[in-house]
Amino acid sequence: MSTIKGFSKLSRTDKIAWLAKHFLTSNPLDIAREFASFMHTNSETQRLFDGISENTLTNFYMPYGVAPNFVINGRTYVVPMVIEESSVVAAAASGAKFWSERGGFHAEVVSTTKVGHVHFQWRGDSDKLFTFFSDIKDILILEVSHLTQNMEARGGGLKNIELIDCTHLEPEYYQLKATFETCDAMGANFINSVLEEFARTLEEEAKVYPEFSGAEKKIEVVMSILSNYTPESVVKAWVECPVEELGSFPEADLDAQAFAKKFRTAVNIANVDVSRATTHNKGIFNGVDAVVLATGNDFRAIEACGHAYAARDGQYRSLSKVSIIDGIFRFEIELPLAVGTVGGLTRLHPLSKRSLEMLGNPGAKELMKIMASVGLAQNFAAVKALVTSGIQKGHMKMHLTNILRHFNATDLEIENALQYFADKTVSFSGVREYLVKVRG
Amino acid sequence: MSTIKGFSKLSRTDKIAWLAKHFLTSNPLDIAREFASFMHTNSETQRLFDGISENTLTNFYMPYGVAPNFVINGRTYVVPMVIEESSVVAAAASGAKFWSERGGFHAEVVSTTKVGHVHFQWRGDSDKLFTFFSDIKDILILEVSHLTQNMEARGGGLKNIELIDCTHLEPEYYQLKATFETCDAMGANFINSVLEEFARTLEEEAKVYPEFSGAEKKIEVVMSILSNYTPESVVKAWVECPVEELGSFPEADLDAQAFAKKFRTAVNIANVDVSRATTHNKGIFNGVDAVVLATGNDFRAIEACGHAYAARDGQYRSLSKVSIIDGIFRFEIELPLAVGTVGGLTRLHPLSKRSLEMLGNPGAKELMKIMASVGLAQNFAAVKALVTSGIQKGHMKMHLTNILRHFNATDLEIENALQYFADKTVSFSGVREYLVKVRG
Repeated sequence: MSTIKGFSKLSRTDKIAWLAKHFLTSNPLDIAREFASFMHTNSETQRLFDGISENTLTNFYMPYGVAPNFVINGRTYVVPMVIEESSVVAAAASGAKFWSERGGFHAEVVSTTKVGHVHFQWRGDSDKLFTFFSDIKDILILEVSHLTQNMEARGGGLKNIELIDCTHLEPEYYQLKATFETCDAMGANFINSVLEEFARTLEEEAKVYPEFSGAEKKIEVVMSILSNYTPESVVKAWVECPVEELGSFPEADLDAQAFAKKFRTAVNIANVDVSRATTHNKGIFNGVDAVVLATGNDFRAIEACGHAYAARDGQYRSLSKVSIIDGIFRFEIELPLAVGTVGGLTRLHPLSKRSLEMLGNPGAKELMKIMASVGLAQNFAAVKALVTSGIQKGHMKMHLTNILRHFNATDLEIENALQYFADKTVSFSGVREYLVKVRG
Repeated sequence: MSTIKGFSKLSRTDKIAWLAKHFLTSNPLDIAREFASFMHTNSETQRLFDGISENTLTNFYMPYGVAPNFVINGRTYVVPMVIEESSVVAAAASGAKFWSERGGFHAEVVSTTKVGHVHFQWRGDSDKLFTFFSDIKDILILEVSHLTQNMEARGGGLKNIELIDCTHLEPEYYQLKATFETCDAMGANFINSVLEEFARTLEEEAKVYPEFSGAEKKIEVVMSILSNYTPESVVKAWVECPVEELGSFPEADLDAQAFAKKFRTAVNIANVDVSRATTHNKGIFNGVDAVVLATGNDFRAIEACGHAYAARDGQYRSLSKVSIIDGIFRFEIELPLAVGTVGGLTRLHPLSKRSLEMLGNPGAKELMKIMASVGLAQNFAAVKALVTSGIQKGHMKMHLTNILRHFNATDLEIENALQYFADKTVSFSGVREYLVKVRG
């Protein structure tokens, strides 16, 4: 157990050798061989993955699957999904299929505005600061024009800047809040560059502003940073059909009416109970994140925003809702999403690029609609399973298969084990014992 | 653009061929070759990844890197991190190094209780239901003993069950709330199996309960499901040192005192402003999720819980906080984490298994401490960068390198470009133009 200086400068081989010596107990050759086995055979391609992050030893495999039959606004998609949890792709595909026979998904982008802030402190009469801000507003905008002109050429750019008095929250605290349109880019680098330029201009202009004296001349920038909270970059997706077209669910002894009502109760519970809301929304992000990953977007940003949005009224609630009005069952989701189809990893990762091709090379707005629809499909399939057969039935089959594979079970052994465990509880030790027994 | 029946039953080759025909525009052979190039050369290993999810075509590579020099409770770790965002591993490593020279990270597990609910509806006088519950409590527990005995042998199991009246939230709505100790397992399958058994027992016993008549005999189970919201499975991690030992930050003209205060202001802002809190916490999860992924845990569960927890007092806030008391700078995080080191993917994915070996095969509690420390290190590095040099400097260098690799730049070209762009804005088109120019 030791510390090290200059680890990042070691070659991959030396990194692995040092780790094997100090932190791993297996045979060093086996370790090196295993890491090597997960590397891409084309060294140029491998270099690309190494360049994405730091201190890379190899690549972590995540299953890359697809969910077909997503009909969204009348167009059919096969949706690429990267996810390490079993049942997620199957659930998305089942939700997609169900609704493809009932008019498909409908989706619309409500808004696409991104935001960023220069957080700063300033001591003085706030009216004076507002006058200063209005006096230098044009300069602030002019000073970032070299950064915004490319985005403007694509139809986006800086939309607005405003000064916000936050001294009730923290002493001497103000925000310069900027709003942006970043077109098909997620826009983080663009926004942060603009904000850092704003910060410099603010500081410089305050120093020479004739109405300021003494401490007023000093704007102390705390930080300049985009916000991942984008309640004005929102997409809505929904499915709807007459209740009777939902079909019947004999496994739970439910006709269409009873299913619709039970489904609505389940979603209502997720709206009022935080324990259920968390898991309910987790299921939505199972679907959303799988598409986020497959298209080279950033799932931490999507998650943080989505969950903060779920708590916007002071209680953490479900992101989806159900209505049954005049015999029409409607299931809807509203989700803030800041995603890109250019920039970042989107075109850099060979499989993200392929994912976008598979989706017909959508723009950011179309991708928002696809993600929201997948989240809704996922949520529908999960709640449907919960209120009918329960989720363990499907899960345990997947779980059992995974354990069996771990013990290198043959196809025949898997088939027999699925029958044997059909009415039994699946546990790691139980499966091991079973295999020992049948293998004699 | 077409729908399909029975897609999941097609072979991988046929799946890809169908996709190439209907949804992709590139040469079908190139597509098939690319998908194949990301598959593991050992077919047994590849089968394992295909078994994890559904409709798999290949594997999505995520860079697998490590952050050395994590001193946690006096022990040194090299932490495996799987992340597709640049700068994250570098930031974790820099935060780890900084604090390894100042006493390291301190961490303690506050609690490890997991929860699940049978959500049900019942019509009648609620007192009667509470009597029923207390009468059948032993039966409920007895009926799940075949499921809980293995977990009990490992020191865990069912801790408590209680009935909760939620009729003020939704008509006729009650919860059977169960709490569990799941030892080193995340425990989802265990908990869900127990809950579904509770649901069956509830329904059956109500039917024959002598004090119930008419509609009272009918308990309508809406759903039985674990909760990913685990505010009683919480870990705390912190770093602390005398303010003067923080050192000085000449790049921002800050001495230790000024740095400590500015850092505190930045964290306070994340506590009071939701726009900043979202991004602040996003940064924490950059670190946490990278370890979650590397150890085969479920990042959607971790994210949903962490963010819902951040909103627990009615406003979404920072998960970390700073104090400066009696000259001691202390930076702390409190995080709910439900993770496992056995079960699920943890030992199934070859690299998760390797990750756990690298961490000394920790139990769940030790892994909670490691994850919280990495989240705190990440947060420290991010806020430190924000309040000193800004984040664009480091980010843009990474961004530039990625774009250059996209255009297959040589090492020499990359070196020259880094110099050229040192004082310029990096954009995809700008880099392309630059390369066209220098390449003649």
